[in-house]
Amino acid sequence: MPITPTALLDSLNYRYATKVFDPTRKINAETLLALKTCLTLTPSSFGLQPWKFIVVDSPEIREKLKSASWGQPQVTDASHLVVLTTRTNLTQKDIDKWITRLSEVQETPLENLAGYAGMISSFTSNMSEVEKQAWNTRQVYIALGQLMTAAAVIGVDTCPLEGISPNDYDEILGLKGSGYATAVACALGYRSTEDKYADAKKARFPSSDLIAHI
Amino acid sequence: MPITPTALLDSLNYRYATKVFDPTRKINAETLLALKTCLTLTPSSFGLQPWKFIVVDSPEIREKLKSASWGQPQVTDASHLVVLTTRTNLTQKDIDKWITRLSEVQETPLENLAGYAGMISSFTSNMSEVEKQAWNTRQVYIALGQLMTAAAVIGVDTCPLEGISPNDYDEILGLKGSGYATAVACALGYRSTEDKYADAKKARFPSSDLIAHI
Repeated sequence: MPITPTALLDSLNYRYATKVFDPTRKINAETLLALKTCLTLTPSSFGLQPWKFIVVDSPEIREKLKSASWGQPQVTDASHLVVLTTRTNLTQKDIDKWITRLSEVQETPLENLAGYAGMISSFTSNMSEVEKQAWNTRQVYIALGQLMTAAAVIGVDTCPLEGISPNDYDEILGLKGSGYATAVACALGYRSTEDKYADAKKARFPSSDLIAHI
Repeated sequence: MPITPTALLDSLNYRYATKVFDPTRKINAETLLALKTCLTLTPSSFGLQPWKFIVVDSPEIREKLKSASWGQPQVTDASHLVVLTTRTNLTQKDIDKWITRLSEVQETPLENLAGYAGMISSFTSNMSEVEKQAWNTRQVYIALGQLMTAAAVIGVDTCPLEGISPNDYDEILGLKGSGYATAVACALGYRSTEDKYADAKKARFPSSDLIAHI
């Protein structure tokens, strides 16, 4: 059952980049599973899913990540921290792996997917490795958007974290040489009653500056 | 009132990249306004909102855009088409404009925001113009993610459109020299009962390949 536009906007207006999480409130198992499923359900170009999502529970690792995040307390105090990583390349092997998976799940013969596979190869053939990673990273930001919006509608607070050292994250998480690299992180949990930012008026440019109708 | 994790997943599982829209079904005014508001409420790095969203109603312009989109029928047949554009640069003037707006909305003296302004300047000072546009574009993809997720929970179908010629879009939409460039588009409306993709099994890699716990 869809929710009403008003209920959606209530959730989005309630959402804010939470600065102080309540360290005693944990996301329960059902809700956490839904958020993880939500990450995996994110749409991506051609369905390629050029990402891995790392849910960091370990307090020790979160302490280290905090040092690589300008000391932002959300990294350790939020219920959970998700590091969204991006595939650093996109090879024919990646494409083949995806087409094979698609064929299995949709019970479609591989030969029926040859045209689709060719389209992906052709779309990506002129991209440099750097461009491929940039393209993949944009897909990861769809996942970030979906995650924050989904969390908002189920009443979970988030804080997107771009002010991190991706290189240090990669070291700490053992991603070097893995084919994946840190793109961005997101803290998930519940706002503290002491977060003064929770009541700050939401600031946006006037919608007439942001939306055009033609 | 938040929705349940199960209701969220029902919406996300119902969502798919709609290939055939019902051209007779229009998004009503209240729902369209909510989706536009949802775009403007998208979180962005430092709150900079480096974007403009163009809602294209004009059938003539949509025909032209279709030609710049490999003829994909969603461009003309969906109820609405949104072109998500990105700021091509990020200057001190952009930062000042944002800080002024923030000061107005939150009724905070400008001098109290000087530290924040300095942080933004410092964060962006080493980026080239190309890097700034790339960073801005990643923010636009948060908006794309938020839009598709929000649409899904209020029962509106979407199709993200990356297979477009951004350069041709810029020409058609008169964006050249405006400081904004096409990043991606998204068709919005309602699926046709004739879209065979609606019933295709959702294909994803196994979650054990996509989610790690540490």
